[in-house]
Amino acid sequence: MTDPADDLIPSVFARDCTSRGVMNNVTGRWGGLALAALHDGAFRFNALRRRVDGVSEKMLAQTLQALERDGLVHREVQATIPPRVEYTLTPLGARVAAKLIELIELLEGEVDQVQSAREEYDREHPAPVR
Amino acid sequence: MTDPADDLIPSVFARDCTSRGVMNNVTGRWGGLALAALHDGAFRFNALRRRVDGVSEKMLAQTLQALERDGLVHREVQATIPPRVEYTLTPLGARVAAKLIELIELLEGEVDQVQSAREEYDREHPAPVR
Repeated sequence: MTDPADDLIPSVFARDCTSRGVMNNVTGRWGGLALAALHDGAFRFNALRRRVDGVSEKMLAQTLQALERDGLVHREVQATIPPRVEYTLTPLGARVAAKLIELIELLEGEVDQVQSAREEYDREHPAPVR
Repeated sequence: MTDPADDLIPSVFARDCTSRGVMNNVTGRWGGLALAALHDGAFRFNALRRRVDGVSEKMLAQTLQALERDGLVHREVQATIPPRVEYTLTPLGARVAAKLIELIELLEGEVDQVQSAREEYDREHPAPVR
């Protein structure tokens, strides 16, 4: 039997599409930063946690697990004593990370423009006095 | 007086950098989808809500407000009866949306690969019996 869903074109705009879920993992609060960090090379867990400033141990572990399940991150346990666990990007993860880096570089480069927009918005929309 | 922070190079990896906040708005659960939808043209609120399948009225309003404050989305109230509110991208918003579209098209195009990775992962990591 053919699943009718096989004929649908994937769309992140559809709430049940697999691509929506992947997008949430890739662009979630920590997923994008983890992928972007790994774009620079392999990381051990604690080094990655230092790089992704502000993430908790639990959130980073969950983030990496979701990205590993999606086939974007590879987790390798090396047979050293103690065992060393290293995270790298898969080929698909590297393609996704490259797109994220482009987005990040654009945002980092336009921070001043965003800051000005925020100041203007806050002047025009003063917070109500409580 | 010069603020020492003015000398820092913006980095999304730093938890207090403005660019981190913008990235969260742009890639948050609904921000990315709203920007990508607006890449197709102007939307009124309810039409945008139908396009971004699954978003609540409250979350979409909050998302659009954050994007407007960041200078990525323009909100225009037209003097019709009843007033018509339309959302469009600013020039910077259009540049950000274009990067997001590239990322989305990559993910939508590789959904089968992600699905296979998930099935393999789930076979190798069976859920514990409760």
